[in-house]
Amino acid sequence: MNGSVGIVETKKVTFPEITLECGEKIAPVTVAYETYGELNERGDNAILILHALTGDAHVAGKHRPEDKVAGWWDPMVGPGRPFDTNKYFIVCSNVLGGCYGTTGPSSINPATGKPWGMSFPIITIRDMVNLQYMLVRHLGITKILAAVGGSMGGMQALEWAYMYPEMLKSVVAIATSARLSPFGIAFNAVGREAIMTDPEWRGGNYYGFEGPKRGLALARMIGIITYKSDISWQYRFGRTHTYETDQELFSHTSRFEIENYLYYQGDKLVKRFDANTYLYLLKAMDLHDISRGRGRYREILKELKTPLLAIGIDTDFLYPTYQQKEIVEALKEAKKEAYYWELSSPHGHDAFLIEFSKMSPILSNFLEYVAGRRATINF
Amino acid sequence: MNGSVGIVETKKVTFPEITLECGEKIAPVTVAYETYGELNERGDNAILILHALTGDAHVAGKHRPEDKVAGWWDPMVGPGRPFDTNKYFIVCSNVLGGCYGTTGPSSINPATGKPWGMSFPIITIRDMVNLQYMLVRHLGITKILAAVGGSMGGMQALEWAYMYPEMLKSVVAIATSARLSPFGIAFNAVGREAIMTDPEWRGGNYYGFEGPKRGLALARMIGIITYKSDISWQYRFGRTHTYETDQELFSHTSRFEIENYLYYQGDKLVKRFDANTYLYLLKAMDLHDISRGRGRYREILKELKTPLLAIGIDTDFLYPTYQQKEIVEALKEAKKEAYYWELSSPHGHDAFLIEFSKMSPILSNFLEYVAGRRATINF
Repeated sequence: MNGSVGIVETKKVTFPEITLECGEKIAPVTVAYETYGELNERGDNAILILHALTGDAHVAGKHRPEDKVAGWWDPMVGPGRPFDTNKYFIVCSNVLGGCYGTTGPSSINPATGKPWGMSFPIITIRDMVNLQYMLVRHLGITKILAAVGGSMGGMQALEWAYMYPEMLKSVVAIATSARLSPFGIAFNAVGREAIMTDPEWRGGNYYGFEGPKRGLALARMIGIITYKSDISWQYRFGRTHTYETDQELFSHTSRFEIENYLYYQGDKLVKRFDANTYLYLLKAMDLHDISRGRGRYREILKELKTPLLAIGIDTDFLYPTYQQKEIVEALKEAKKEAYYWELSSPHGHDAFLIEFSKMSPILSNFLEYVAGRRATINF
Repeated sequence: MNGSVGIVETKKVTFPEITLECGEKIAPVTVAYETYGELNERGDNAILILHALTGDAHVAGKHRPEDKVAGWWDPMVGPGRPFDTNKYFIVCSNVLGGCYGTTGPSSINPATGKPWGMSFPIITIRDMVNLQYMLVRHLGITKILAAVGGSMGGMQALEWAYMYPEMLKSVVAIATSARLSPFGIAFNAVGREAIMTDPEWRGGNYYGFEGPKRGLALARMIGIITYKSDISWQYRFGRTHTYETDQELFSHTSRFEIENYLYYQGDKLVKRFDANTYLYLLKAMDLHDISRGRGRYREILKELKTPLLAIGIDTDFLYPTYQQKEIVEALKEAKKEAYYWELSSPHGHDAFLIEFSKMSPILSNFLEYVAGRRATINF
């Protein structure tokens, strides 16, 4: 009963064009996506999962039986799991600007026959949502039970609530903010700077060259620090290293285990991710502010019409819990339906990608409630 | 009564040699230092102030009347101030490996006639303390009332307590740890990587060249993020920027005010600091562990003989308050005299360089007690 979605595939659909917030158009535009479960006849049992910065459409299952790793939220999705494919039709797409099949800066610009690079237009979280909306309509979905995401995925979920409330029955926003904090912008700024100061970045025209490997790796190392917590590394690494003597440790090339881990994570991302996409998505996060161009922040929060569950993580220092609480508080003040639940975990921001067993009952409960299968929320 | 130390000068003394923990010698070795107030006849009214990463010996006063900025802890030092120059003889020296007059990687290696660069031996916090000890003896000091420092300065203060307890009447360790956490090592690792991936670093042989300006600036930008707090930037910058339209904001070159601030701070450090010194001091901090080579961490803490005041900052996420509390708890368990005081401030780690009026009564009180001028500590 409680199992995996099994073997899945990433599909693609191409639309004639999308008009962006910046005023430019991308034509045509392709979206890579995966779906699990079946859409019912009324088209109203869909759930939209929204991925974070370096994520992709591959939420659950495996592409090939021999794959070592399943999708990034696999334990959450499948028959009998919180995102229950016996009941719901689950959709996740790679974001606009991404490098996992959806049109982005590493895609070929039809006007030039070359990769867009930094000539790709600036995209925003709202643009991502608009492309998802096109996909959702294309799939015949009439109602989305929940738009669910963590971190950058949560930003999209919140924009969904503002932009398409008539399509949406609820929002689950995890470890995120309705506007990126200056602290978050600061970390994004140094990540970008790491990439753009690498001579191999070549102003973004590195396709066919080596590419800004060290710059992207450094950006990722910085990112990884912000996704974990002091306490998680105290437990996991402490000050351990593999040198037998102080003399070996006393060197500019010696590394503590925590350093080996960071370098490993940096190199790992370089193998799978496009540096320009990294720049575009960081910028989209910086520009994320649900009130931008709409009105006062707290008033815009109060305008959200969709029942909302905000999940904070007690050790997340990148998106501290006050940022999720303030959304719920504003909604409650406006007499809207909103819930806050705190995930207690040593893992920091990344806990939403790790603490499946803690999150499962909460998400199950909330989705059952939203789907009308239970009368009250109980957590 | 309550005033500045006025015009001061940095002095230098050169010793024939120093033997380092790594086994190598530096010969000769020069120390740059400043003193304020007068040493009494018994030589026992000295206080040692120990600077942080990018600090120097210039704690208080001005070098020239036209100087716009006074020393880095100026409001704390002078007649009637907590480090009262009517009562105490205050000493601060630039650390070994530094770039403000004390021998470091930018100094000329007498054996080659060229700057040491990365051939400078690896130094540790203990080496810094040993050189300070040589200076202290040279100045005729017989007893140090207090060794006081924040951040890297606090690491030195704690090592003083272990290494020269017979010289020391007390320790004040602020926003620091008795061993650098893996979280701290991680931030140092990305700072180093930023410098060393800059082609202008040239393996450390950049003297006479442009130098790794962008790399050092990036390292500093990363550092600055860790010295402040989410909440301080919410208040100070929020999401402010100077663009009138979204179109102007939607650009890879647009910057939020927080970004302008980071770039400004990065450039500012490049003008005043040596990149190789930055690398050596970060490594010294990484190697800092009061128990390294001595025994079990908590047992070594318990061996400290010197009365201690540890100050934590509630918003410091780089050196969280549990790190200062654990020192005090270990000492109390061993029936030693130890006090913990928490500085409440939005400014994060940097609060010890900002919150003078909050720290003053505590430090005054503690120093008076240590000097035998008051019978009890009262805070």
